[in-house]
Amino acid sequence: VSEPRVLINGRMDDRIAVADRGLAYGDGVFRTIRCEAGRLLAWQRHYAKLQADCAALGLACPAEEAWLADLAELAPVDAAIKLTVTRGRSARGYAVDPAASVTRISQTGPLPPYADALREQGVTVRLCSTVLGIQPALAGLKHLNRLEQVLARREWSDPAIFDGLMCNPRGEVVEGVMTNLFIVEGDRLLTHPLADCGVAGVVRSMLLEAAATLGLRQELTSFDTQRLLAADAVLLSNSLAGIVPVACLGERRWQNFTLAQQLRTAVVLQSLKESLPCTAA
Amino acid sequence: VSEPRVLINGRMDDRIAVADRGLAYGDGVFRTIRCEAGRLLAWQRHYAKLQADCAALGLACPAEEAWLADLAELAPVDAAIKLTVTRGRSARGYAVDPAASVTRISQTGPLPPYADALREQGVTVRLCSTVLGIQPALAGLKHLNRLEQVLARREWSDPAIFDGLMCNPRGEVVEGVMTNLFIVEGDRLLTHPLADCGVAGVVRSMLLEAAATLGLRQELTSFDTQRLLAADAVLLSNSLAGIVPVACLGERRWQNFTLAQQLRTAVVLQSLKESLPCTAA
Repeated sequence: VSEPRVLINGRMDDRIAVADRGLAYGDGVFRTIRCEAGRLLAWQRHYAKLQADCAALGLACPAEEAWLADLAELAPVDAAIKLTVTRGRSARGYAVDPAASVTRISQTGPLPPYADALREQGVTVRLCSTVLGIQPALAGLKHLNRLEQVLARREWSDPAIFDGLMCNPRGEVVEGVMTNLFIVEGDRLLTHPLADCGVAGVVRSMLLEAAATLGLRQELTSFDTQRLLAADAVLLSNSLAGIVPVACLGERRWQNFTLAQQLRTAVVLQSLKESLPCTAA
Repeated sequence: VSEPRVLINGRMDDRIAVADRGLAYGDGVFRTIRCEAGRLLAWQRHYAKLQADCAALGLACPAEEAWLADLAELAPVDAAIKLTVTRGRSARGYAVDPAASVTRISQTGPLPPYADALREQGVTVRLCSTVLGIQPALAGLKHLNRLEQVLARREWSDPAIFDGLMCNPRGEVVEGVMTNLFIVEGDRLLTHPLADCGVAGVVRSMLLEAAATLGLRQELTSFDTQRLLAADAVLLSNSLAGIVPVACLGERRWQNFTLAQQLRTAVVLQSLKESLPCTAA
């Protein structure tokens, strides 16, 4: 395990209290952000999402200035940034100590070694048997309760598989373990509405916006595996990999990645537009 | 926050790595055990449950000897013991590092200040609006993904309320935020089967066994709030409080706690029978 650099509440430190509710209950939220050439891609959107996720759990989101001060100190160049907010320390038991304050964790680590070829030649995915539970109160949030993803990711070890697709109990294909999922049908771009499960990623929202500029009609709608397999194209998105076309799922092959490339370019440009230098504080 | 005493992998320490998957994903399980006069109540059952929960997540459960050595060092007398197993450290991302080893955390803290009166006069509960999600892969396990309980516990602050009852999306009353739930109908003791949600506690299993010795027929079956309100008696169980009768839910009052007392006594005796001194290692 290569050591990431970590600041906890602004202090260089890589350990947190066992009494922190982030460990005890997964009581917190996080963000994964790509830093490229010292710029935090899509920062504005990431911070807005962090605020929204904190609000949904009743957490006081640390000020933007505090995060930017952390990142100015960590001074990443090309890095995977992880920002975490937990409800802080409390005595044993679910009740929250009103005097407790949140824990703010800023980490930098290496970018995953995705080959550019993935984006040009597309990736291989599989269908997971682990099903996403239905929980409207947590849907869309990037919270610290991620055992469903852990179980799904344990289903395969083949490094040739980029991600696994997860269904909900209604048989709808919702998302990948670490990505959001889109299908293209003619001039329509479809993705699950994520009203009662799933994580609504930042790149997902940018991709939906970019689609409109490319003349695609976007639809938040659910689809099953049959419809997925019949789609003209399948795309994945997350903040580190950007937009990645799917080339292979079981016997099915997709070969036209032109649209994926166009969407990718549009999203990269928008991510830069909404970026901030790490030295902003 | 009063400081609990903590051993991490056998060393006196109260902090864990930020890179621990227990924090990152809630990737682990835990046990809460009552220690009374230096004896770990129902130890055998707790350790068996810890092993089973670890196995369900593919975690290597630390050996009984390691836990008992921890507890001999911590030497609690009257205490709430918390044992946690996480999947240990890994690099960012859901994939598990095969070389990683689990983190073993042993903690002691004060017993909650439950008045004996609670057990004799019964407790007040409320119905929570937070619903338990359906997830067969995690049902029954005491894992570290406890945001549903956190959200439910945030619904009230009145200290007169002992616990909140949680339903699943089918309208079945499943359990309390921190307790298992039982209703009595004539000579039958009913509790939810917990096949697709909920935590199957150790005292729950002891109570089901004790019921048989008292001539009660036990049934693992679901029930809705109407049936709960119509029940002859309602009981809660967990490892720290033992068995507690419910006296009040909204307008409804229950007053006959004779059966609860009998079950309580039977479970206390069995907990002692299955107990171990902390000095056992």
